[in-house]
Amino acid sequence: MQRYAVIGAGAVGGFYGARLAHAGAEVHFLLRGDFEQVSAHGLKVESKDGDFSLPAPHIHRSAETIPPCDVVLVALKAVDNPALADVLPGLVTPGTTVALFQNGLGAEDDVARWCRPRAILGGLCFICSHKPGPGHIRHLDYGRVTLAAWSADGRAAGSTPEQAALAQDLETAGLPVQCEEDLLLARWKKLMWNIPFNGLCVLLQTSTRELMDDPGARNLVRDLMEEVRDGARSMDRNVPAEFVDDMMAYTQSMVAYQPSMQLDFEAGRPMEIEAIYGRPLAAAARHGTRLPRIGMLHRALAFLEQNPSVK
Amino acid sequence: MQRYAVIGAGAVGGFYGARLAHAGAEVHFLLRGDFEQVSAHGLKVESKDGDFSLPAPHIHRSAETIPPCDVVLVALKAVDNPALADVLPGLVTPGTTVALFQNGLGAEDDVARWCRPRAILGGLCFICSHKPGPGHIRHLDYGRVTLAAWSADGRAAGSTPEQAALAQDLETAGLPVQCEEDLLLARWKKLMWNIPFNGLCVLLQTSTRELMDDPGARNLVRDLMEEVRDGARSMDRNVPAEFVDDMMAYTQSMVAYQPSMQLDFEAGRPMEIEAIYGRPLAAAARHGTRLPRIGMLHRALAFLEQNPSVK
Repeated sequence: MQRYAVIGAGAVGGFYGARLAHAGAEVHFLLRGDFEQVSAHGLKVESKDGDFSLPAPHIHRSAETIPPCDVVLVALKAVDNPALADVLPGLVTPGTTVALFQNGLGAEDDVARWCRPRAILGGLCFICSHKPGPGHIRHLDYGRVTLAAWSADGRAAGSTPEQAALAQDLETAGLPVQCEEDLLLARWKKLMWNIPFNGLCVLLQTSTRELMDDPGARNLVRDLMEEVRDGARSMDRNVPAEFVDDMMAYTQSMVAYQPSMQLDFEAGRPMEIEAIYGRPLAAAARHGTRLPRIGMLHRALAFLEQNPSVK
Repeated sequence: MQRYAVIGAGAVGGFYGARLAHAGAEVHFLLRGDFEQVSAHGLKVESKDGDFSLPAPHIHRSAETIPPCDVVLVALKAVDNPALADVLPGLVTPGTTVALFQNGLGAEDDVARWCRPRAILGGLCFICSHKPGPGHIRHLDYGRVTLAAWSADGRAAGSTPEQAALAQDLETAGLPVQCEEDLLLARWKKLMWNIPFNGLCVLLQTSTRELMDDPGARNLVRDLMEEVRDGARSMDRNVPAEFVDDMMAYTQSMVAYQPSMQLDFEAGRPMEIEAIYGRPLAAAARHGTRLPRIGMLHRALAFLEQNPSVK
């Protein structure tokens, strides 16, 4: 297995990093607030696939002590990405793969501006997990990762050896992986769920279940999904119409779920508004397409973030 | 002065009816819940223009005891309009003017289906008032009424004698009146304020002041106002672009204000969603125009009304 650096050991990075380490990979975690706890008590994962812990993982307070790695796995909340500009260049060699396990659009382009890795991969995590406390990850459901390679010209990169190598390690760790040839299409398809459900659950203070049970709200979700399709189309990506139905059926089949943005909002943490709304809107606008409902959701969420006391 | 029947003696109808009565008009109030209180203690108006009370107004439990009137002034919340279908025909003679002091679009058309008055007027009330208790009206600010005549063919009716007669009585009662020639244009212009501010204040649980102070929310208000202009345009009504600026400046100059829809929502009362959103959206759609942001606000509000516990 490859050697990994994991930046952002929260509900996502902590889970995937720990699974890779548990399966035998050498994994170096860059920790901030959790360092003391993990140093003393290790990293604990409760999972529907089986609990385990890493009693003495490789942990670092600073990127400077992390040895050269094959893969830098970034699993920060997108709102914390500005810190990457400082950290990544020191971790990346011409042989490094950077994999962004994050929501939203455009972060791979940022990475390409900050450093010159061998490859940049996007990872889309379909997972329900959270972090009840420092060094403690709880994995509730799902876990699949969609992997696709970034390309400088924005076209589909196809299958790449770096994608295959990461996929193989994840599968060795028992994690289901789906390899896609077109990162941008994969990201827009993920936005098809994230854009309606994250925003509406925050705005209406409700769960996916209540939205799906209300005919008007369901229509609103569909309208938003259609706008996401418009956004994808503006960048020459065709999300098939049936994908809307699939997403609706998938959400209908889920238990009542509070998206991560809602948990962030309720906890007073910054929301991934820019990654999930601002950048897709800007990308579509650059291609001449306005997405009025998504734009409205974006502004409403930004207002709520600036005026948290009002709810 | 003409003889009046006032249906809906709340914060609007109670105020205008009491002012007319105070100025010497014969005004018959149709009361439901407030009957006992007003019967025992009269009608009390606290107003920035001077307090007064009507110790023994003409009040009725049923429309059947109301004598023939020149003007039936309807000031129900639009959500209570279905009751009008039963009440109005008994009050309307071929000589009666029906004046609807209400928000939204389309209620005049309903009245024309239910009965055959001599004339139907729309009254747009620019007033801050509320009803702290039965038989007790508090008038905080403003008070101007815009009057315009309805026409069966939907065109501007111009100036009419019934409009002039009502305007004269209101002015005799010291109330500022503005006579307009085009009811539909006047109603769309009123919607220009009601559509953004009522809905956003409910959805974001905020006041006009906070919306105006947030640059993103202000842009959202503007976008919604532009969609209202699109709606008006679909019915061949041109609201000048500068009217958006005027509305913004007007709202900026107001004190922090909770629109009536927000007060209704917080009190668990039905909101005027259909009058302010549903009917304008349907009217624009009939004329081939979609208003996506307003449609989204409509659905979000309908969801909140159906799921009041979520806030």
